[in-house]
Amino acid sequence: MPRSRPESHCPRVQGVSERAPTLAVIGGGQLARMMAQPAIALGLPLRLLAEAPGVSAARVIPDQLVGDYTDSATLRAVTAGCPVVTFDHEHVPTDHLHALEADGIAVRPGPGALVHARDKAVMRARPAELDVPCPRNAVVATSADVEAFGLPCVLKTTRGGYDGKGVWVVRDLAESDAAFAAAEAAGVQIPAEELVDFRRELSALVARSPSGQAAAYPVVASTQLDGICHEVIAPAPDLSPALAGQAQEIALRIAGALDVTGIPAVELFETADGRIPVNELAMRPHNTGHWTRDGAVTSQFENHLRAVMDLPLGSPAPRSRWTVMVNIPGGPTDSGHLYDGLPHAMARDPHLRVHLYGKDLRPGRKVGHVNAYGDDLDDCLGAGAARGRVVPRRPRRDQ
Amino acid sequence: MPRSRPESHCPRVQGVSERAPTLAVIGGGQLARMMAQPAIALGLPLRLLAEAPGVSAARVIPDQLVGDYTDSATLRAVTAGCPVVTFDHEHVPTDHLHALEADGIAVRPGPGALVHARDKAVMRARPAELDVPCPRNAVVATSADVEAFGLPCVLKTTRGGYDGKGVWVVRDLAESDAAFAAAEAAGVQIPAEELVDFRRELSALVARSPSGQAAAYPVVASTQLDGICHEVIAPAPDLSPALAGQAQEIALRIAGALDVTGIPAVELFETADGRIPVNELAMRPHNTGHWTRDGAVTSQFENHLRAVMDLPLGSPAPRSRWTVMVNIPGGPTDSGHLYDGLPHAMARDPHLRVHLYGKDLRPGRKVGHVNAYGDDLDDCLGAGAARGRVVPRRPRRDQ
Repeated sequence: MPRSRPESHCPRVQGVSERAPTLAVIGGGQLARMMAQPAIALGLPLRLLAEAPGVSAARVIPDQLVGDYTDSATLRAVTAGCPVVTFDHEHVPTDHLHALEADGIAVRPGPGALVHARDKAVMRARPAELDVPCPRNAVVATSADVEAFGLPCVLKTTRGGYDGKGVWVVRDLAESDAAFAAAEAAGVQIPAEELVDFRRELSALVARSPSGQAAAYPVVASTQLDGICHEVIAPAPDLSPALAGQAQEIALRIAGALDVTGIPAVELFETADGRIPVNELAMRPHNTGHWTRDGAVTSQFENHLRAVMDLPLGSPAPRSRWTVMVNIPGGPTDSGHLYDGLPHAMARDPHLRVHLYGKDLRPGRKVGHVNAYGDDLDDCLGAGAARGRVVPRRPRRDQ
Repeated sequence: MPRSRPESHCPRVQGVSERAPTLAVIGGGQLARMMAQPAIALGLPLRLLAEAPGVSAARVIPDQLVGDYTDSATLRAVTAGCPVVTFDHEHVPTDHLHALEADGIAVRPGPGALVHARDKAVMRARPAELDVPCPRNAVVATSADVEAFGLPCVLKTTRGGYDGKGVWVVRDLAESDAAFAAAEAAGVQIPAEELVDFRRELSALVARSPSGQAAAYPVVASTQLDGICHEVIAPAPDLSPALAGQAQEIALRIAGALDVTGIPAVELFETADGRIPVNELAMRPHNTGHWTRDGAVTSQFENHLRAVMDLPLGSPAPRSRWTVMVNIPGGPTDSGHLYDGLPHAMARDPHLRVHLYGKDLRPGRKVGHVNAYGDDLDDCLGAGAARGRVVPRRPRRDQ
C-alpha cells in the first residue's frame, strides 16, 4: 500500500480544474499554522517553507519544503509556480525579496513595507514623515549620546528584537552598556526612545489589499507579562471613540503610505493625557489580533489571505460585545503535557475557544491561546483566566 | 534542499513532548476535510486514509495513507499507534471494525452504531423498539408485496443509497420494477415506507461522548433540491418549542440507545398534523450541521473530535438568532472555475462565510457551502442566495 508522496499534494497537479492559485508561505510558525484553517475554507492551496520538519505549521500544511529562508535558491524553489508569496515573519533578506519580485512573483507584503517592521530605525523615520505621533527618538552610539538624549529612556536594537528581547529600559547610564554590547555583537544600531508614561497599550489592526481596499478592526487593549503579550481585550474598554478613530486612522495611513498588503498591526501607547504615540509596527497577522478568530466576522488570518490574494476583504466587525484573548505560555517541559490539560479547561467552560500551536513546551514560549466572548467583560476575563488550567502552573496576572 | 518526507509528519515522532494522541480518520471527503480545521485548533494530529491522492481531505491533512477502506490490512496500517479511529462515511465493513476493536483501537462511532446508518432495514427496526416515531415500513420482495403494503409508497435499497440515489417514490406498481432491479443487482433488500405527507424536513444533531456526555444542537429545517440538501435554516422557523424538544429528545434517545459516539444526525419529517416521524439516521457530521461552523459556539466538527477523543463537549448554543447554510453544487466542468467565483460572492457580502471543499467541479456534486447569519432571516436567506455567484450558473430555488 503506497504512502502518498509529497508530490501528490502539489496543487499544480491537483488544482487544475479548480484553478485556485497556490500561495507560498515563508516560515512555519503559529501564524502560518493559523493561516491554514481559512485557506482550507477558501479552497486556497498553501505551499510552506518550514525551518525544520515538524514545526508548528509543518504539522498541518501538506505541501511543504524544509529549508533556509535566507537562501535564495530555497526561496525560489518554494515559490516556483506560485503567483504570490507571503510570510510568517519579517526576516527574509530584502535582496531576496527583490529577486522574487524580479521573477514575477507578487511579494505581499512587499520588501518596502517589511523593512519597517524589521528595522526599528526605519520604523521611526517613515511614520514621522507621515505626521504619525511617535515617542521622541534618536539613534545613539555611546553612553554620552544616551546622556544627551536624556534619562530615563528605552534602548532597542534596530533588528532582531521581539517579545521583550533586544529592549532595555535605562534609568542609569551604566544600564546602557548591555544594550551597546548586544548591538556591537549583532552589528546593529541602537535607537533611544523616550520612556512613555503610558496608561495602557493599544493595538490597531487593518487589512489592506493590493487594490487598496482596506478594513479596520476594532482597536484593542493589550497587557504584557515579562515583555510578552499576555491578554487582549476587544474592544479596548472605555476607549474614547475619538481616540479609537484616531488609532484606526493612523493604522490605515501607515498601511497606505507604506503600501502594505496583508495585515499590518500598529501597537500604540495610550497616555494619561490622551495621546497615542506609536510603539511598534508589525507587517503580519499579530498576537493582538488572535481574538478575531472567534470574535470577529472575518479573522485576521482569513483577511490576510484575502488581502494577499487580492480577494475582496471580509467584514472586520466584532461578533460579540467583548472578546478576551489570553495567551498560553509553555511551562517547564517536565510540568505536564498540554493536551492533558485540555479536559480541565474545556470542562470548566464549554464556551471557551482553545487554539493550540502544536509546539513543544518551553518556559515562556507561546504555545497557544484561548478566546472567551460574551456580553459581560468580567465573565470573559474570568473565562480567559481558565487557560491557566491548560498548563499545569498558573502564571501570575499583571492586572 | 530536501523535500520533507511524509514520515516527518508522523505524530508518533513529533508529538512526544506534547503527547497528543493521533486520531485516525477513514475517508477523504469533505467531512474529514472539515475536521482538519478544529483538529489544528485542538492540537490534535490526524492520520487520514484517503481513497485516492488529492481527494478533498488529502489536500489538507499531511499525515496520510492512500488505500482501500474495505481492505483489512490497510485499515490496520492507518490506525497503527492511534488510540481512536473515526470516519468520514459509514461504509467500512463491520467485520473490519470488529477486528480493529480486537486490536484495542477505540472505533468511534462503533460498528453497532454505524450499521444503523448503513442498513435502512436495521435503521427502522431499532428505533421502533425505542418508541421513536417512524413512517410505517416493511421489507418487500415482490410487486405483490408492494401492493399489499399500499400505494403510494417509497422504496429504498437497504444499503448504498445517498443524496436521493437508491430511493424511488412509487405511485404505480410498475414503478417498483426499477427498485427491485437495482436491489437485485446490488444484492440488497428493499424496505417499503409510507409516503409521508410532510410540511417540511427537520434535522436534530447531537454530540455524544463515550463518557455519555451529550449536547443537542438547535433543531433546523432543511430543503432538498433533486434529493440533495440545498438549504438549512437554523433554528427551524416557527417550530413549536414542544416539537423542537421532542426532536432533540428523539435524537438523544437514539444516540444513547445505540451507544453512538461522535455526531449522530436524525432527519425527521414535520407533518401538517404536528408529528415528526424519523426519516433518516446518519452517524457522522452531517450536511444539516454545516451551519454550526459559523453559527454555533462549537461546530459539529469540533464536537465530533471532542466526542470521539472523549474530551468535554463544547457548547452547541447558537451564536446568532439565525444562520442559513446553502450548498454550492458543481456546475458543468466547462462552466467556469470555483475560485474565480469567489470575488463576486465576497464582494457582494463581506459577512458571507464561504467554505469550499477543494473538489473538482461536477454537475450536482457538493463542492462547498456558504453560511450567512444575523438577526434578520430574510437578510440571511438573501445572502445565502448569493452563493449562486460562486458558481457561474444560478440553480433554481425550490422555495
